[in-house]
Amino acid sequence: MSVRAAQPVRSAIPLEQRFDAVRERSLALAAPLSAEDCCVQSMPDASPIKWHLAHTSWFFDVFVLELHERNFQPFRPEFRVLFNSYYNGVGDKHPRPRRGLLTRPSLDEVRAYREHVDTHLRSLLCAHGAGPRLGALVELGLHHEQQHQELMLTDVKHLLFMNPLHPAYHRARAGLDAVSGPLEWIGFDGGLVSIGHDGNGFGFDNELPRHQVYLQPYRLASRPVINKEYAQFVDQGGYAAPELWLSEGWDWVRSNALQHPLYWQRGDDAWAEFTLSGLRPLAPEQPVTHLSYFEADAYARWADARLPTEAEWEHASQHCLIEGQFADQGRLHPAAASGPGLRQMLGDVWEWTQSSYAPYPGFRHAEGAIGEYNGKFMVNQYVLRGGSCATPRDHIRASYRNFFPANARWQYSGLRLARDA
Amino acid sequence: MSVRAAQPVRSAIPLEQRFDAVRERSLALAAPLSAEDCCVQSMPDASPIKWHLAHTSWFFDVFVLELHERNFQPFRPEFRVLFNSYYNGVGDKHPRPRRGLLTRPSLDEVRAYREHVDTHLRSLLCAHGAGPRLGALVELGLHHEQQHQELMLTDVKHLLFMNPLHPAYHRARAGLDAVSGPLEWIGFDGGLVSIGHDGNGFGFDNELPRHQVYLQPYRLASRPVINKEYAQFVDQGGYAAPELWLSEGWDWVRSNALQHPLYWQRGDDAWAEFTLSGLRPLAPEQPVTHLSYFEADAYARWADARLPTEAEWEHASQHCLIEGQFADQGRLHPAAASGPGLRQMLGDVWEWTQSSYAPYPGFRHAEGAIGEYNGKFMVNQYVLRGGSCATPRDHIRASYRNFFPANARWQYSGLRLARDA
Amino acid sequence: MSVRAAQPVRSAIPLEQRFDAVRERSLALAAPLSAEDCCVQSMPDASPIKWHLAHTSWFFDVFVLELHERNFQPFRPEFRVLFNSYYNGVGDKHPRPRRGLLTRPSLDEVRAYREHVDTHLRSLLCAHGAGPRLGALVELGLHHEQQHQELMLTDVKHLLFMNPLHPAYHRARAGLDAVSGPLEWIGFDGGLVSIGHDGNGFGFDNELPRHQVYLQPYRLASRPVINKEYAQFVDQGGYAAPELWLSEGWDWVRSNALQHPLYWQRGDDAWAEFTLSGLRPLAPEQPVTHLSYFEADAYARWADARLPTEAEWEHASQHCLIEGQFADQGRLHPAAASGPGLRQMLGDVWEWTQSSYAPYPGFRHAEGAIGEYNGKFMVNQYVLRGGSCATPRDHIRASYRNFFPANARWQYSGLRLARDA
Amino acid sequence: MSVRAAQPVRSAIPLEQRFDAVRERSLALAAPLSAEDCCVQSMPDASPIKWHLAHTSWFFDVFVLELHERNFQPFRPEFRVLFNSYYNGVGDKHPRPRRGLLTRPSLDEVRAYREHVDTHLRSLLCAHGAGPRLGALVELGLHHEQQHQELMLTDVKHLLFMNPLHPAYHRARAGLDAVSGPLEWIGFDGGLVSIGHDGNGFGFDNELPRHQVYLQPYRLASRPVINKEYAQFVDQGGYAAPELWLSEGWDWVRSNALQHPLYWQRGDDAWAEFTLSGLRPLAPEQPVTHLSYFEADAYARWADARLPTEAEWEHASQHCLIEGQFADQGRLHPAAASGPGLRQMLGDVWEWTQSSYAPYPGFRHAEGAIGEYNGKFMVNQYVLRGGSCATPRDHIRASYRNFFPANARWQYSGLRLARDA
Repeated sequence: MSVRAAQPVRSAIPLEQRFDAVRERSLALAAPLSAEDCCVQSMPDASPIKWHLAHTSWFFDVFVLELHERNFQPFRPEFRVLFNSYYNGVGDKHPRPRRGLLTRPSLDEVRAYREHVDTHLRSLLCAHGAGPRLGALVELGLHHEQQHQELMLTDVKHLLFMNPLHPAYHRARAGLDAVSGPLEWIGFDGGLVSIGHDGNGFGFDNELPRHQVYLQPYRLASRPVINKEYAQFVDQGGYAAPELWLSEGWDWVRSNALQHPLYWQRGDDAWAEFTLSGLRPLAPEQPVTHLSYFEADAYARWADARLPTEAEWEHASQHCLIEGQFADQGRLHPAAASGPGLRQMLGDVWEWTQSSYAPYPGFRHAEGAIGEYNGKFMVNQYVLRGGSCATPRDHIRASYRNFFPANARWQYSGLRLARDA
Repeated sequence: MSVRAAQPVRSAIPLEQRFDAVRERSLALAAPLSAEDCCVQSMPDASPIKWHLAHTSWFFDVFVLELHERNFQPFRPEFRVLFNSYYNGVGDKHPRPRRGLLTRPSLDEVRAYREHVDTHLRSLLCAHGAGPRLGALVELGLHHEQQHQELMLTDVKHLLFMNPLHPAYHRARAGLDAVSGPLEWIGFDGGLVSIGHDGNGFGFDNELPRHQVYLQPYRLASRPVINKEYAQFVDQGGYAAPELWLSEGWDWVRSNALQHPLYWQRGDDAWAEFTLSGLRPLAPEQPVTHLSYFEADAYARWADARLPTEAEWEHASQHCLIEGQFADQGRLHPAAASGPGLRQMLGDVWEWTQSSYAPYPGFRHAEGAIGEYNGKFMVNQYVLRGGSCATPRDHIRASYRNFFPANARWQYSGLRLARDA
Repeated sequence: MSVRAAQPVRSAIPLEQRFDAVRERSLALAAPLSAEDCCVQSMPDASPIKWHLAHTSWFFDVFVLELHERNFQPFRPEFRVLFNSYYNGVGDKHPRPRRGLLTRPSLDEVRAYREHVDTHLRSLLCAHGAGPRLGALVELGLHHEQQHQELMLTDVKHLLFMNPLHPAYHRARAGLDAVSGPLEWIGFDGGLVSIGHDGNGFGFDNELPRHQVYLQPYRLASRPVINKEYAQFVDQGGYAAPELWLSEGWDWVRSNALQHPLYWQRGDDAWAEFTLSGLRPLAPEQPVTHLSYFEADAYARWADARLPTEAEWEHASQHCLIEGQFADQGRLHPAAASGPGLRQMLGDVWEWTQSSYAPYPGFRHAEGAIGEYNGKFMVNQYVLRGGSCATPRDHIRASYRNFFPANARWQYSGLRLARDA
Repeated sequence: MSVRAAQPVRSAIPLEQRFDAVRERSLALAAPLSAEDCCVQSMPDASPIKWHLAHTSWFFDVFVLELHERNFQPFRPEFRVLFNSYYNGVGDKHPRPRRGLLTRPSLDEVRAYREHVDTHLRSLLCAHGAGPRLGALVELGLHHEQQHQELMLTDVKHLLFMNPLHPAYHRARAGLDAVSGPLEWIGFDGGLVSIGHDGNGFGFDNELPRHQVYLQPYRLASRPVINKEYAQFVDQGGYAAPELWLSEGWDWVRSNALQHPLYWQRGDDAWAEFTLSGLRPLAPEQPVTHLSYFEADAYARWADARLPTEAEWEHASQHCLIEGQFADQGRLHPAAASGPGLRQMLGDVWEWTQSSYAPYPGFRHAEGAIGEYNGKFMVNQYVLRGGSCATPRDHIRASYRNFFPANARWQYSGLRLARDA
C-alpha cells in the first residue's frame, strides 16, 4: 500500500466522511442475511460474513488504535488472535479453515465490536486530525475493507449456491438486457510505455513503483467474452479437448470432472446460472463470469487468441472511463453493454491476464506486519484487472492488481481476448 | 427396532403424552443455543442442532405421516431429501459433510416444521388411535429422537470445544463430588446364559432375538475407571508405549499426535477438562470419559485386564438398577459414586466392550427403508453398553447396544475393566 | 503361536528336514521372477518378493540366532531395522510403504543373507538339538515363512496385474475343468461345542485356548459360491443396489467405482479373469475369488443367506479332509470340484466368516516382541477360514484363523453361504 | 523447439555422429546401476532409469520412425502407450505415478528396443540424408534425450537417498576443493535489451522469438550462494522465521517440517550431504544446491537481496564462457571456483530466477503432438537458468529456459543473488 508513497491522498470527500460511508456499507451488505447465513464457511477459500465484519474492524483495531491510541484497551483480548487473517507479525491466528466454527462471538457482539472500533477511531481522528501517517493507515484500512466487501458478496454467493434450495441474496430487477454487439479488435502500437500507480490518489504497494516496460504491438478485443460465445466453446467440447488446456489445467478439469463454469447448470433445453438473485436462465449477451485462469486460457486458445499481459491491459486502459457495472449500482451481476471502441475495461468482470503476480522492479513492502499485506503472496497467482460488478466503484483504477490462484473461480472473473498485432 | 417383535409395548404413560414430552425435550435442549450455534457442523461425524431438530421430525413425517395420513401434503417437498440421514430406500439425501451449510431453512422455519409434524401426528393418533403397527412406528420414532437428543449434546460439546473461547452450554452446579472408593472385582460364574431383549417394553431390532451364549467364568470391576487412574496411565507414558496398543490404535495415536483424552488440557500444574459447563479442573474421582476404543483397550492392557464382552456385560447387569447420572438430572457430566457391589453399570459413561457390533443369531431387520435403521452398520464398529449422563433415563436398558468406530471419542465413552476368573 | 502351548509338536518329518524344505520352497517361488519383479511394491498392502525373502530370514536371525547363538554376529547390522516388519519390541523399522524403494541390497545379496541364516541355524540345531523352546521357535519361524509364501503369490499377482502387459507368473496346465454341481444345504444341530486348537501339532496363539461356544442350529452350503453364480449377482445389478450392502461397503463401492471382483475384466462378450497364468476367460464352475468381506456379505444378502460365523465354520469342518487345491499342486488357482456332502472346506479359496477377529476367552500372547505376532491386530479385521490354492497344504488346519480388513481383496478370498436352520 | 525456426543447425559434428554419441551416453549413465536400480520409481515426480531409456527411444520411434519410415513396424505395439510421457496428441498414456510398476519389459528388453530404434533411425538417416525437417526432428530428439540424461542423474540420486543404506552411484575423486572467495556485486546498466534465442544453433521453441525487454539498472552476485553462507541462514533460524518466506512457501515449510535443503543431514558436530558418491561432509565452499524456489527466495530476502529476473540473468550472461562443472567432467557435483568478475553463470547449479515460466511475446508452438513439448507447462512454474553439474555441456546456452514448480528441489538447483542498482 501507498504508505511509503508519501503522496497525500487528495480526495474530494473528507476522510471521516469516507470512513463512515465505507463502514456503513459493510453492514448494509450483511443486512439481507440472517445470523446463520453470516456464520457459516462454505469452503476454506471463503470466509463467513461475520468474520469479514470482525476482521475489517480488527484491522483498524490492531494497526491503528493499538498503535496510536493512548491507554488503548482491547474490546476483547481474544479477538487479536481470533480475527487475525494472515499477519505473522501480529502473532498467532485462528486457523483459516475453522473460521466457520466461531458461533461465538455472536453476530450481535461483532456488531458491537464494530461500533466500539468506530467510536474510538472517530475520537482518534478528531483528536489528532488525520496526519499523513495516520491518515494513510486509515485510508489503507478503508481500501482493505472495500476488498472484503467484494469478498462478502462472492463468499455468500458460494454459500447460497451450496444449499440445494438455492436461496437468493437479494431481488435484482431483471431488466431488459442490452445486446453486446460483435467483438472487434482494437490495435495498440506498444513500444516503451509506463505502467504502475502514478501517485495521484491511493494505491497499494504492489502497484509501485511506476516503471517502463517494452511492449510489442498488440490487439485487444473491444469487450469481454460473453455467455453465448463461451457456451459455444462448451457445446463444441471445449472441456473434453486436452489440446486446448494447460497441462495442469487439464488435470484440474479431469480430477474435478468439470464441464462448465462454476455457477452454470445444464437444464433440459438451456443453461441456467446461479446468481445473487437465485437461479436464472443464462443471459447470452452478458459477459461470462466465474471462470478460472485455466478456463480463460483454454477459451482463448480455442478462439485462436491469448490472454493479454497485465502491462498490455494497463497500457490500453489508461484512458478508459470508470463506467460499467460496479457494486454501487446494486445489480451485482455483469451486464451486456454496447458502443464503439474499447469498453467495459473497468467493472462487470475481473479480466484474467496471462501475467503471474510478481513484484514490479524496485518493489519494496512496508516495514512491520503491515508489510505482509501484498508481497508475500507473489507466487503461483495470476493477475486480474479491471474490477467487477461486486467492486465498489471508488475502489478501482487502471493500475489496480488483483490476484488469485489459477484454479480460483468463485470471484467475478471473466476474460478479454488479446492477439499479437 | 421391535416392530417385528409384536410385543405390545406396555408403558405406564400413554403414547400421546410421551410423544409430547419427548418432542418438547428436544426443543428444550436447543433452548440455551443461538441460531448460529444450531447451524454449524464442527466435523463430518457431528451434525448441527438444527439438523437434528429437523431430521427427528422428518422421521415421523416420512415413516408415519407419509404412509398413514390421508391426503398427505409435505410441509416442504425439498425436506424429504434435505433431512434424510442415510435411508437409501427413501431416495436421495443431502451429503452428510454438508449438513452445516444449510443456513436455510432457518432455525425458526425448522421449529415451524416441527410444529407442523406434531400437529399432524397428534391428529393421526387421535383419529386412528395407536393401533399396534402405527403405535410401534411412533414408539420407534420417539426412541430415535431420544438417540438424537444424546447426539445433540455430544455434537454441541464438540462445536463449543472447537471455539478458542471455550464457551459453556449451561451452568451446572459444581457440587461437592463424592469419592469413588477403591476398585473391587466382582466374580461371575458364566455358563450357558441368555442375552438380548426379553420382549418386555421397547427394544431395537439389533437386541433380538434373545439367545443363549456360553460364558467362561469372569470378573468385572465394581465401577468404571476414574480420572485419577487414567491420569496415572497418561503420566506414566501410556501414549508413548506401543506395546500397550492395538497396531491400528498405535498408528492412530501417532498420526494424530495424541497424548490424552479428547477434552483434557494440560495446564501448568494440573489437568483441566472441557465440559458442557466450560473448562474446569479435572475431577479425579469422576469416571474418565471421551475415550476411544483404542484408548480403553490400551488402558485395560496397562492395568493387566481387558474389556468385557457385551455378553459378559449384559449378563452381569441384569439385576442392576437404573441409577446414576442420566440426561434427566441435568448435570450432563459423569459423577463419582460409592457403595458396595457392582455399580454405575447404567448411566454416567458408555462402557466400551471388546465385542464387534454383529447381528445376533437369527437377526432379521424390518422390511423396507426402516430396515436400514441398524443392520447396515454391523461392520467395523464396537459395542458400548449402559448409557451415559447424556442419555435419557427411560431410553436405556440392559440389552441396549450402542456402537461406534474404534476411533470415535466425542461420545461420553469410558470403560469398566474385566478379567478372566 | 503355540510357544506357550508347551505341546511338543509331533511330526513325522524331522525339524531339520522340514526347515530345509520350507526354506527351499521360498526360493522356488521366486525362481520364475526377475530381480526387477522381486524388487517392486505395487501397493502399501503388498510387499516385494525380495523383502519377503529377507524378512523370513530376519525372523530366524532376530528371534532365534540373536538370542540363542553364541558369539552372534549379524550378517549386516542394518538389516535388523530394514527387514523388521512390525515388531516394536525389536526397535525401529523401515516404513512399510517404502519397502519397494530398497533396490539395495540386491536380490543376490538377499539370497546370500538367506544362506548365511540357514547355515547358522542348521549349526545351532545340530549343536543344541531342537530343545522344546528352540524347537518351538523354529517351528514358528517355518509357519511364519509359509504365511509369507502365500503372500508372495498374492503380492506378485497384484504386481503383474498392475502392468498393462499383464504378464504371467507361470504357465499352468489349463486342464479340463470339472463341473461344480448344484449347491446343497447341509444342516448342523449346533449346541454346546468346542472350538480352538486341540493341542495336536502346531498352532498359532490366536487359536488358543480351546473353549466352548453355544451354536444355534444352522446350515452351510455344500461348496463355495462359484463364478457363474457371482456373475449373475453382478449382471443383475448387485454393485448398484445399496440395499444389499453394509453402509461402509456401499461407500467403498461408490468411492472406488467398483463393478466386479478385483481381477475380473469385462470383455465384449464375456468376462475374463487375470490369473497367475495371465488373462483367461472366466471359468464359470470355479469358486469365485478375490472378494472383499463387503462383496461376500452383499452376495450372501442377495442370495437370502448370510456368512457363517467362524465357530459354525470350524465346528462343521472338523471332520473334513484336507483335500482341494493347495499351493503344492502348482495350479495356483481354485478349481471346480464335485461330490456329495460338505466339500472344499479346506483349500481353493479362503472363506470369509462374519466374525470379527477377536481374542478367544482366556487368550494370552507370548512375552516379548514375539507376542506382537497376532494379538495386536485384533481390531477391524474379519476372520477367513480354510486356506486357499496358494496355501501350503501342511500349513492349514480346521482351527486356523486368517484375518484381513473388510476391504481387502488381493488374497484368494471367496465365500460359502450359511443360513439359520 | 526450433522446428519452426527453420534455421539449419550448423554444427561441427555430423548429425549421425552426434546421434551415436548421445544415445551411447544414456546407456553409459545406466551402466553403474543394477536392473533393480533401474526399475524403481522413488516418487511421482521422478521416473525409473529404465523408463528414461525407453521413453527417449519412444520419442524417435513415434515422432520420427512412425512418421517417416516406409513400412514402419512397431517393436512392440504396446510401447506406444507404455512410454508416452504426456503427449495427448499421441493418444493414451500409462499413468505417471505407475511408471515404477513396470517390471516388464525387462531392462534387457528395453536395451533391445533402443537398439532396434537406433538401427532403424540410422537406416533412415542414411537413406534420406538429414533433410531440414527430418534433421530438425532428430536434433530435437537428441536434445530431448539430453534433458532426460540430467533427469536420470537427479532421479537416481533421489532413489538412492531414500534407501537407508545410502548407497553411492559412483566413486568421484574427492579432490582438493578450491576456495570460492568473497561474493562481489557486478553492476549492469539495463535499458532496452534483447533476449531469446538468436537463431544460431539449436534452441527450443520456448526460447523464441528473440525480443526486446526493458531493464532497470541492476546488480548480480559474482558467484552462486555457497554452502557456508546458506548454513548460516539455517543456523540463524531461517526455517523458523515466517517473515522471510512467501506465504505459500511458509505453509510448505511447516506442513513438511523442513529445516534444511533436501540432501543435508545434521550430524553431531557438522552437516553432512548426500551426493552421488554417498554421504559426505558438507563442503563449505561449494555452491549450495537442491533448493526449492521458496528456499532460494527466502535466502535472498534474508540476505537483503532478491532473485534475478530471467531477462536480467540472460542479459548478464551473454558474454560468459561455458565453463564450470558439467556432466561431462564426471564429478556430478557442483564445485567451488574462484576468479574475477561474473563466474559460474553456466554449469554447477541451475539458478532460480524470480520469473514465472511464460510464453515470450509472439510465442507459437509447433503443430501436432510435438507442440505439447513446452507450451502447455507455462503455468505455476518458475524459470531456472544456466545448467548444472548434471547437464551435458553441449546442451546448455545462455537463452536456455528450464522450469520447475516452486517446491521442486531434487534438481541441482541453487541461486545467485540480485539487487537493484
